Amino acid sequence: MKLSTLPNGTPDGSLVVLSSDGSRCAPATAIAATLQSALERWTDVEADLRELVHALDRDGAPGAQAFNPMRALAPLPRAWQWLDASAFQSHGDLMQVVFKLDKVSHDRPLMYQGMSDRFIPPTADVALPSSEDCIDFEGEFGVITDGVPMGADAAEAARHIRLVVMINDWSLRRIAPIEMKSGFGWIQAKPASSMAPIAVTPDELGTSWHASRVHMRLQVDWNAHRFGAAHGGTMGFGFDQLVAHAAYSRALVAGTVIGSGTVSNPDYRVVGSSCIAERRAIEMLDEGQPRTPYMAFGDRVRMQAVLEDGTPGPFGVIDQTVVANERKA
Amino acid sequence: MKLSTLPNGTPDGSLVVLSSDGSRCAPATAIAATLQSALERWTDVEADLRELVHALDRDGAPGAQAFNPMRALAPLPRAWQWLDASAFQSHGDLMQVVFKLDKVSHDRPLMYQGMSDRFIPPTADVALPSSEDCIDFEGEFGVITDGVPMGADAAEAARHIRLVVMINDWSLRRIAPIEMKSGFGWIQAKPASSMAPIAVTPDELGTSWHASRVHMRLQVDWNAHRFGAAHGGTMGFGFDQLVAHAAYSRALVAGTVIGSGTVSNPDYRVVGSSCIAERRAIEMLDEGQPRTPYMAFGDRVRMQAVLEDGTPGPFGVIDQTVVANERKA
Repeated sequence: MKLSTLPNGTPDGSLVVLSSDGSRCAPATAIAATLQSALERWTDVEADLRELVHALDRDGAPGAQAFNPMRALAPLPRAWQWLDASAFQSHGDLMQVVFKLDKVSHDRPLMYQGMSDRFIPPTADVALPSSEDCIDFEGEFGVITDGVPMGADAAEAARHIRLVVMINDWSLRRIAPIEMKSGFGWIQAKPASSMAPIAVTPDELGTSWHASRVHMRLQVDWNAHRFGAAHGGTMGFGFDQLVAHAAYSRALVAGTVIGSGTVSNPDYRVVGSSCIAERRAIEMLDEGQPRTPYMAFGDRVRMQAVLEDGTPGPFGVIDQTVVANERKA
Repeated sequence: MKLSTLPNGTPDGSLVVLSSDGSRCAPATAIAATLQSALERWTDVEADLRELVHALDRDGAPGAQAFNPMRALAPLPRAWQWLDASAFQSHGDLMQVVFKLDKVSHDRPLMYQGMSDRFIPPTADVALPSSEDCIDFEGEFGVITDGVPMGADAAEAARHIRLVVMINDWSLRRIAPIEMKSGFGWIQAKPASSMAPIAVTPDELGTSWHASRVHMRLQVDWNAHRFGAAHGGTMGFGFDQLVAHAAYSRALVAGTVIGSGTVSNPDYRVVGSSCIAERRAIEMLDEGQPRTPYMAFGDRVRMQAVLEDGTPGPFGVIDQTVVANERKA
C-alpha cells in the first residue's frame, strides 16, 4: 500500500491512498484524516485503507484523481519524534576522516533525536541561513512506527514498522563537528529534513524488504550529475534493531520516524556517495585533501530509489533547490 | 498569568487559567482548547486569557473550581520540540569530572534535542526499565516560545518567550557517557521529562525574571531530605540567547520548550545540587570517590522553586516516585 499527503491548509495535510500503479489517488479522510491519525489507530484502519486501494484500482473510489507527486507534502508533514541513526558503517568511518574524529564504535547503534515539527515537502525549496555553513544532503531510508512499548525487543519492534520512507537529512557540515565534540548531538547542524512523497507498507517493497532493510539503491543526482547510488542492504543494524534501541527507556509514540543514516557502501569508490562529506573524505584518503565543494544556493539535489534493474522504487522523487532563508517563520 | 492543563482524556488535556492567588481555576477552552493552541495564536489570545483571570478573581468566570495541582497534567503535555541546554557552567564542569570527559567548552551554548511527545504529569509515577541504569533527576527551569523565525537574534528571541516552567529532566547516568562519546547526544539516557503543574508568563515572576533568567532557588528533596537549593540566576547564557541559538538554522515551532539544564551554582558545596551526578562529582573531588548512590525504585523526588525569603515560586511542585516499567506502551 502506498500513502501520500496532499495540502489542505493544515499542518498535517490530508491523507490519500494511491492506486496500485501509483497513477491515481483517492482521499482516505473517511478512514483517517491524516497519516498521524492512521498511525495512532493502525491495526483498526489498515484493512479499510487497503480496501480503499482495491476500490480505487476498480475505479470505484469517491473523489479519485490523478496523483501529482509535485503537489504532495511529506507523507508525514510533522511527527512527534524523529530519531536518526547512522547504521551504515562505511558512512561512519568516512565521517571520522572528514571530521577528524576519534574512531567510531560500531558495537551499538548511533542515533540522535532530530527536529520533527516539520518535514519539508519533496519538491519545495529548502531555505538555509548561509552557504558558508557547508550545506550537504544525506540520502536515507527510514521507517515509521505505530506505538511501540518501552522495552520491545527487535522481533517485537519489527511488527511495529508500519511504513517505509525516503528522506533527505539536510546537514550543515561547518557546524556538525563542533556540536559533535560537545557530546550533545546536533541542533544548528541539522535543520529540517525532507521526505519523498510516498510512504509504503513494507510488503509493497516485496523482496526488496528483508532483514528489516531496504534492498534498493538510492540514486542521488547533484545538479543533474549522478553523485551516488549506494545500496540500502548493508546497514550494520536493521530497522528492527534501531526501533528496539530507541525503545529501551521510552515508549515510542505512534508516528515515530527512524532513519537509517546516510546510505553508504564499503565500495564507495564504485557506487559513489549519498552525501558530499563522504566524497570529501574519500578525496582526503586518496588525494590528501578534499576537492569537492559543498552546495551553493541555487544548487539542486534529486533522490530516487531504484531496484537493481533500474526500475524506480515506490517512494517517488525528492527534487529540491537550496535557497537563502528570507527570515520568515 | 498562571496556566495549567487538566486531564480530559485527550493527549493535550484542557487548558485552564488560575486565579491570581493560584487557589482557583477556570476553563480557558472558549479561548483556546489547549496550551499548544494558545501558543499558536498567542498574540491573539493573550489579552482574552488575562481578562479571564480578572473575571475569575472577581468570581465571574464560568466553570470556576478549586485548583488541585495533584490533578494537573504537565501544562504542555506534549510538545513538537524540546531542546535542553546545559547553561550552568558549574554543572558542566562537575559532569566532566563524573563522566571523565574532555574539558567542557563554555564559549557556545550546549543543547540537545530531547523526547517531547510526552511530558510526565508532576505527581505521576515515573516508570523506567532498570535501577541498574543509575537513575538520576535534574531540576531545571525552562521557557516555552511561540513561533520564532529562523535567524532571530537574542533580542527578538526574548520577545517570543511566552511562558516559564520548571522541569525534571530524568537521566540514566550509566548510559549517558556512552551516548555522549558517540557525539550524537542522548536517546536511551534521556527518557521522558516531567513538568511542574503551572506555566507562568514572565511578568508573573516580577523581579525574579531578569536578564532572561529565573532568579529563584530550585529546592530539591530526595526521599524527604533536602538535596539542593541552587539559584537560577547564574546561567552562563540567558534563555534569550538559548532561543536564538536554537533558531540559527530552523524556525522554532510554536510550543517549543527550551530548558536551562541542571540548575547549579559555583558554591555547590554550600547550596547543594539539583542532580545526584553532581554530588558524586563533588565527592570524587573531595574524597577521591563517589559515595552517594543513584535512585532506587520506590525513591521519591520533590522539586519546588522558592524566592530568597523561602516563599514558594509560582510553578507548583513536582513530586514523583520512580517505579519499574511494566512494559505498557
